[in-house]
This record gives sequence, structure tokens and C-alpha cells, in this order.
Amino acid sequence: MDLKAYLKEQSRLVDEALEHVIPGEKILPHSLHEAMRYSVFAGGKKLRPILVLAACEAVGGRIEAAMPAACALEMIHTYSLIHDDLPCMDDDDFRRGRATNHKVYGEARATLAGDALLTAAFAVLSDPDINAGTDPAVLLRVVSMVSHAAGSLGMVGGQVADMESEGGLQVDLPTLEFIHTRKTGALILASIKAGALLGGADEQALGALVRYGETAGLAFQIADDILDIVGTQEEIGKDVGSDQARGKATYPSLLGLSESRRRAVELRDQALDSLDPFGEAAEPLRAIARYIVDRTS
Amino acid sequence: MDLKAYLKEQSRLVDEALEHVIPGEKILPHSLHEAMRYSVFAGGKKLRPILVLAACEAVGGRIEAAMPAACALEMIHTYSLIHDDLPCMDDDDFRRGRATNHKVYGEARATLAGDALLTAAFAVLSDPDINAGTDPAVLLRVVSMVSHAAGSLGMVGGQVADMESEGGLQVDLPTLEFIHTRKTGALILASIKAGALLGGADEQALGALVRYGETAGLAFQIADDILDIVGTQEEIGKDVGSDQARGKATYPSLLGLSESRRRAVELRDQALDSLDPFGEAAEPLRAIARYIVDRTS
Repeated sequence: MDLKAYLKEQSRLVDEALEHVIPGEKILPHSLHEAMRYSVFAGGKKLRPILVLAACEAVGGRIEAAMPAACALEMIHTYSLIHDDLPCMDDDDFRRGRATNHKVYGEARATLAGDALLTAAFAVLSDPDINAGTDPAVLLRVVSMVSHAAGSLGMVGGQVADMESEGGLQVDLPTLEFIHTRKTGALILASIKAGALLGGADEQALGALVRYGETAGLAFQIADDILDIVGTQEEIGKDVGSDQARGKATYPSLLGLSESRRRAVELRDQALDSLDPFGEAAEPLRAIARYIVDRTS
Repeated sequence: MDLKAYLKEQSRLVDEALEHVIPGEKILPHSLHEAMRYSVFAGGKKLRPILVLAACEAVGGRIEAAMPAACALEMIHTYSLIHDDLPCMDDDDFRRGRATNHKVYGEARATLAGDALLTAAFAVLSDPDINAGTDPAVLLRVVSMVSHAAGSLGMVGGQVADMESEGGLQVDLPTLEFIHTRKTGALILASIKAGALLGGADEQALGALVRYGETAGLAFQIADDILDIVGTQEEIGKDVGSDQARGKATYPSLLGLSESRRRAVELRDQALDSLDPFGEAAEPLRAIARYIVDRTS
């Protein structure tokens, strides 16, 4: 399949949906909605929402049913980036080649824009009009799963653990895995699960996609660590070597580059194996797993 | 009824429930859960969760069914206080007589503790074990309602509007009402609605309680503005005159003290009228409406 064309088209569909679910800049308070939209429509890769839709497709679901969750996952990811970039956190001035939210709107408004995006994600997941036709019990299950993945035992917990590991003692592999499975892995896995649930997956299909999400998610993180060393700025959208500059533990720093690559390839193959039950409909998920790892070699 | 004893007992029940739904300090990351708990168990009045329980009681519901929502509303309120106190916002060092969250845990961790509490609120509202026995469709309606109330069209929007009004041009009454109905009113109303829905209210009872929530919520805000001028520090838990010091528009500054009191009394009476259909079971809601206003005179 033509992955590039697929990603572009799915990304366009997600942008179109996000356009409808986030209040417009003409709605009060103008500056808040402008700040929310500034970061949501900043041209990100939209990996999480695309995984939501691809997982839904893999189990034979209608992507319309999964689109609100796709938007919600992108909104949660975006809020986490806005808060990560704040002066009290990573203090980054640029993100995806543009000034970060707080550089444009000020720290207070950026903090609140992040808060509002996180809150709006749950509004989108639960709104009866946006989710017309979807079983409330399934929606509630998605709300529960996503909120657990994004909170103190998931993404936010990973962020705190990552912060506390910086510049401190040498981080060991279990700690690095604790951080990665939470900081990025939890939301990637939640995206896959949300798509599967909203696509009507039975428990067996859900289990297979969870294995895909766990392995592909970790492969993604290892690949990201590798790209931080060997990638070009264009490929990774941030400064090359920024992890090293911060003294952050990464897979290459703990395992070396070639062992990191070997693990990424192994995880990719496990991810592909877990898709065996799905046939043609899982082709996008397969192509994404390959792409994640192959761009590092 | 003995309101003081009632508030104390309900507050104890809410604390007990919060103790169970917020991860313990022994769970990783320790510092994050410690920071979340520091602000949740800081001895606040617990007005919002008590309103959830009282509204549930008024319609004849079981308070156990409303307890998760009571916890969630308190967690959302607490996250908003943690973020409000940040240096980039109000830059407050003390809250309820104790050092603010960022003074103890640092800005980054306080920001993330707020994020995690907001996220955890939705986990508590939707978790199948915590909400065993409650209809998923009702829970989803509560998630939707609460997320709308807490977001950019509700509480966060009110906070941005409030921030933008400070030290600027003279704020007029419609702007002040825009701010108050969102910044504090939205979450108070959401508390009442959540309790009513989880208590099994029909649409008519829900409508009556919405009128109660709207009027009592605004009365609460006017009373707060009055207390900022005439109260003692003990009564209001923050510095007397802090609104004036910040040049904030308040009801007394726009309408004068006696007209503000007249409005608060009028709103209290409207709130009491809206409870006519409920009889004895609404006694706590009546006592709360009276208390809100009567402490200002």
C-alpha cells in the first residue's frame, strides 16, 4: 500500500473533524480558543489519531464511529506537548518549526489552553451529538481506558518519572522502560484500544491489537531515541542530539546503537505477528509498524 | 437542621472516598501522588462534593451512586486551584493557610499534579468498578456535562476572561456575570446536575435543581465578593481585600455593598423557591443556600 498517501489522507480527515469539535476563534474567550487551535493545527504527524482509525478499520469498524476518539487522542497529545514546552518544564521555544504556545500566548494562557484541550478531549469522547449512534457503554469504556492511560499511572506519571531521571543518577533499563511505556506508550496503546473498541472488536481481537500496541509503541520510542542521534532535523522535527544534550537516558545510551536497532526490529516483527488474525484490513497497521522502524536504518 | 454537623459529616465521607480513588503515595511516581494528595487533603470546604451528595439526596437517590462524582468534582476544583496559584497565574504562596502546591513540589510537578487530578476526575467518573451498579448511559451523560462545564466554555474560559479583565479597562456587569457564571458557577451547577442525574432525577426535577444551581451559584459568588471586603481572614481563608488589591472587578465595586447584598438575598430566595417541589429531602440544599448568603450580613 502507499503509506504516504494513506497517512496524508487520514491526517486530512482528522484535521477536518478537529475543525468541527474544537470551538472556533470567534467564540469567547477568543484568545483561549485561538491558543488551543494554534497547537492543534500545527502540522503534527497525527500518529495517535491515525492509529485509532487504523485499529478501527482492522476490526472491520466504521471510521466515523472512531473519529471522535481520534480527535480526543490528538487533543490529549497536544495538551501534553504544550505543558511539556512550558518554561517550568522543558522550556522549549520551538516545536514543529513554530514558536511554542507560551511564546505566542504567554505562560498563563498556554497552561490554560492545555487544560482546556485535555478537558475538551473528554467532552468529545462523551458528547451525545458527536457520538450519535455509538453505544454509551462502549463510549464509557473508552473514557475510562483513555483517562487511565493519560493520568498519573500513565502519561503524566511517565512525564514525572522522566523529569526526575534527568541529570540524576544513571538510569537503568527497567526505569527507562517504566518511563517509555507510560510517557509515550500509554497513549499509543490507548489509541489502538479506542479504535478497536469503537470498531466493535471482540475480546480476542482486542487482545491481539493490545499486543500490537505494546510492541509497536515501544518500537516507536526506541526508534525515536535512535533518530535523535542519527536522524536529520527534518525527520524528527526537533534539534538532533537534544536528548544527549539534556543528559537523558535513551536506548542507544544504555544498549548501544546496534543492539537498540536489533530490539526495534524484533519488536516490529512481534507487532506484525500479532496482526496475523486480521488479513487485508490490518494493512495500514502493518505499514505503520514497518515505517516506524525502517526509517531508522 | 444542624448544618454545621451535616457539612462536617459529609466532608468526612467525601475525604474517605477520595482516599480510595486517588492512588497512594507508595505508588510510582511517589512525588506525583504525594503532590496530588497534598492539595486534595488540604482541608477545603468541599462545597462542590457536598452539593453533589445533597442534590442526589433531594431527588431520593442513594448517595453511594453519587460519591464518585462528588470526588471527581472536588478533584477538578483542586486542580483548578493548583494551576491558579502558579507563578504564571496568580502567583500565590499560600492557600488555606498552607504553602501552595508549587511552593512545596516545584512548578513542574504542581502543573503535572493538576493535570493528573483533572485526568483522574474523568477516570473516577467512568471507572466500571468504582461505579458498579450505575447505568453507563447516565455516567456518560455526567462525563459529558462535567467536561463541558470545566472546559473552555465553562470554568477554564471563565478563568481566561477573568485574567484578561484584570488591571484592564473597567469591567461592566455583563462581563462580570460572564466571568462568574463560568469561573465558579459552571462547576457548582455541574455538581448539582451530577448529583441529580446520579440520584435518578426526572427532567422536571433536574430543571428545578438547575434553577437552584444557577441562583445559588451566583449568590455564592456575590457573597464571596462581599466577604472579600467585610469578612475576616478566618472566614474566607485568604487575605481580606485581595480582590481590591488586584484591581479586580467585583459585585460590590460595580453595584456597591448594599445593592450586592440585596441581590444575594434575592438569589437566595429564588434558589429556595426552586426547591419547593422537593419537601424534606431538600433540607440540606436549603440550609446551604441560606448559609451562603447569611454569613455575609
